[in-house]
Amino acid sequence: MELKNLSLQIPESNLPRVVIVGGGFAGLELAKGLKHASVQVVMLDRNNYHTFQPLLYQVATSGLEPDSIAGPLRKVFDGFKDFYFRMVKVDRIDHLSSTIETPIGNLSYDYLVLACGSKANFFGLEHIRRKSFPLKQVVHALNLRSQILQNFEKAVLTRDKSEKDALMNFVVVGGGPTGVEVAGALGELKNHVLPNDFPDLDFNDMEIHLIEGTSRLLGDMSSFAGAKAKKYLQKFNTNIILNRLVKNYDGQLVYLDNGDTITTQTLIWAAGVQGNLVDGVPETSTEGNRILVDQYNRVAGVDNIFAIGDLAVYKNQDYPKGHPMVAQVAIQQGRRLARNLAAHLAGKSWKPFEYKDKGSMATIGRNKAVVDLPTGMHFGGFVAWLIWMFVHLFALIGFRNKMVTFINWLWSYLTFDKGNRLIIRKFDRDKTSPVEAV
Amino acid sequence: MELKNLSLQIPESNLPRVVIVGGGFAGLELAKGLKHASVQVVMLDRNNYHTFQPLLYQVATSGLEPDSIAGPLRKVFDGFKDFYFRMVKVDRIDHLSSTIETPIGNLSYDYLVLACGSKANFFGLEHIRRKSFPLKQVVHALNLRSQILQNFEKAVLTRDKSEKDALMNFVVVGGGPTGVEVAGALGELKNHVLPNDFPDLDFNDMEIHLIEGTSRLLGDMSSFAGAKAKKYLQKFNTNIILNRLVKNYDGQLVYLDNGDTITTQTLIWAAGVQGNLVDGVPETSTEGNRILVDQYNRVAGVDNIFAIGDLAVYKNQDYPKGHPMVAQVAIQQGRRLARNLAAHLAGKSWKPFEYKDKGSMATIGRNKAVVDLPTGMHFGGFVAWLIWMFVHLFALIGFRNKMVTFINWLWSYLTFDKGNRLIIRKFDRDKTSPVEAV
Repeated sequence: MELKNLSLQIPESNLPRVVIVGGGFAGLELAKGLKHASVQVVMLDRNNYHTFQPLLYQVATSGLEPDSIAGPLRKVFDGFKDFYFRMVKVDRIDHLSSTIETPIGNLSYDYLVLACGSKANFFGLEHIRRKSFPLKQVVHALNLRSQILQNFEKAVLTRDKSEKDALMNFVVVGGGPTGVEVAGALGELKNHVLPNDFPDLDFNDMEIHLIEGTSRLLGDMSSFAGAKAKKYLQKFNTNIILNRLVKNYDGQLVYLDNGDTITTQTLIWAAGVQGNLVDGVPETSTEGNRILVDQYNRVAGVDNIFAIGDLAVYKNQDYPKGHPMVAQVAIQQGRRLARNLAAHLAGKSWKPFEYKDKGSMATIGRNKAVVDLPTGMHFGGFVAWLIWMFVHLFALIGFRNKMVTFINWLWSYLTFDKGNRLIIRKFDRDKTSPVEAV
Repeated sequence: MELKNLSLQIPESNLPRVVIVGGGFAGLELAKGLKHASVQVVMLDRNNYHTFQPLLYQVATSGLEPDSIAGPLRKVFDGFKDFYFRMVKVDRIDHLSSTIETPIGNLSYDYLVLACGSKANFFGLEHIRRKSFPLKQVVHALNLRSQILQNFEKAVLTRDKSEKDALMNFVVVGGGPTGVEVAGALGELKNHVLPNDFPDLDFNDMEIHLIEGTSRLLGDMSSFAGAKAKKYLQKFNTNIILNRLVKNYDGQLVYLDNGDTITTQTLIWAAGVQGNLVDGVPETSTEGNRILVDQYNRVAGVDNIFAIGDLAVYKNQDYPKGHPMVAQVAIQQGRRLARNLAAHLAGKSWKPFEYKDKGSMATIGRNKAVVDLPTGMHFGGFVAWLIWMFVHLFALIGFRNKMVTFINWLWSYLTFDKGNRLIIRKFDRDKTSPVEAV
């Protein structure tokens, strides 16, 4: 039965309505911060869950199950008054009439907050967009997990050397945290997990290539961290290619800008992100796919629309190009905006957003991580790895997720194994583009 | 890239080759039992994991994640010598040439063991096959989980009473353990979980119907167990309809044999199973979709082919219609056949299969289960529920699965919640038949 009578019905309220588009880090913190404010809150998201993106790579590499790194949004807002979640895609906004448009109807707002996050940036390379594996959503991680495991199941079936090479080679594009962490996790699969599973394959034939356009890894972190990450990855025999861009990919050959090619069935695209821009935002308020905002995260030129998180660019003296597109900025902008909206409605004045850098970190396999502290101090190794684990463990939503993740990590640490190796989304890239599969 | 050079290459061995089709309970125990036998073992399965089917209903109802109730098959056989797993579908067998045929080529065998299990039996009702949700595979469980959660996300969006009814009603067909356990788990979602998630819905409107063709529930268990299960389900306000058959379903209306109809978007089909018969088995050796075997699980009329588990029917004085299609029979037949094959190759004689009934049990929500012991004793309630939990927990594959399942159960028990509520396989039944989705 086709449902013909769906509509975005939200009960009328005496309170002003804040519509939040997106339940990522920014939207989640904003909505939580508005719990006791005199507003009606409507949150819209295409998924019914919040994704803890920093651990997606562990889902993709069989370390964690998707349910441990995501939290059902309705559960988070259990008990909130005058709060409404709707699982729906937003088509466009009409700022002149203060309305958002969705496939099942329109909804008016008093305040609109765009917290739609970011998506993979393929820089207009359409072949790469259709054939490569991005890592921005839970389903992307499951698609990649299935692809990796299927590759080896097929590799034991082929008699052709070039087919086997294509199946056992992995190319990761982008030397930021995601690229480095995926490459490290693939190295662990190669060293500790897959050789037991596939005794008939020679894992010296498994190549992991990490391609980065600039001259170093982890460009947003200290040069110490970049050098350390490179050293760690080289211990896994990762082939690190710097100062090179990927120009094309036909599903079999990766073409670099110097004419080199690499054979692989699996190109993992972590080369960049772009804002998940919604139609209808005035062009004068955007830069690329992101939205220009002031110190209160107000969209330039529109009174009652805000943008927070990866989608927003706020430039100031300290950050002339805007803040980094990371979880901490999103979380802090969400919290600041919640306080500002509540203050505003209570007749008080706004406070500008000030980013408190809590440092950054990345992990590259067991016992190996790098940490940059905001004090300028940086270190690597076992202590960095322990810190990485505890910070991520405590940032997960809910006690169950923390416990299940902890059990998985402890078990993996003791056994050198990764437990989540089911192929549950049989993946045929010739039929479905990995970025579009839902 | 299309892979053109795939083939079922298995190294030649001096030892006789045993090909096992299926890594369910029967095939798994057989292969484990052959670890030290003088044979080469080749296991084929369409999935890379073993499914613990008795807990599929918990995946479907958000209680457990799929990775905790399934085990990667390669992991199970880690360290086995002359053992080969291949993820491939078997098209047919040719018993005259002792060959199996697959989409990527043929494979000869000395001994063939068919352990393909069972699938849902729709009794030729094609509309029901296309529109209803069976519960025999991990992907079925995830499809049903997505359907259940999507239903409620849509129910808050509809203004139409009949659409809302169809979304909030669930019809379970079949009063065996699967039907009873699904109905019980839906009752728990209704009582403890969903009302917190959807405060805008009235859960008095959520109807759970359980339809059974005979005059009682749990027909293979004691009448005590059947009556107790009925009482437990009625506490959840489950509408139990006995002595009725479902004749048709159009995706919206369920048609019963007395002309009654029930409106629902979700028909869960647990009304019966049939053998997963492979093409090429001589017709004279089959009965319905199952294979007739003797006391050694040899296929009638063929020397070197065996069938074990749900696919096999072995009739004797104690079981004139064959043994029940349950895990224990499959496990015991797999173990017996392993010992017989090993003995046979060592020049010793065969021992006939004798089923040791270990009793049966079913659970209906927290603190509620029924247990029939082989002594003829039966009981229900909290103790039965504790026994049910520990038996299932210890039967799961691997320490990680046991721990993660235990954490989930403990957490659910303490919080009255179910943690795994992600919609990760957005399900559109109008496009895909739930039984065919992979």
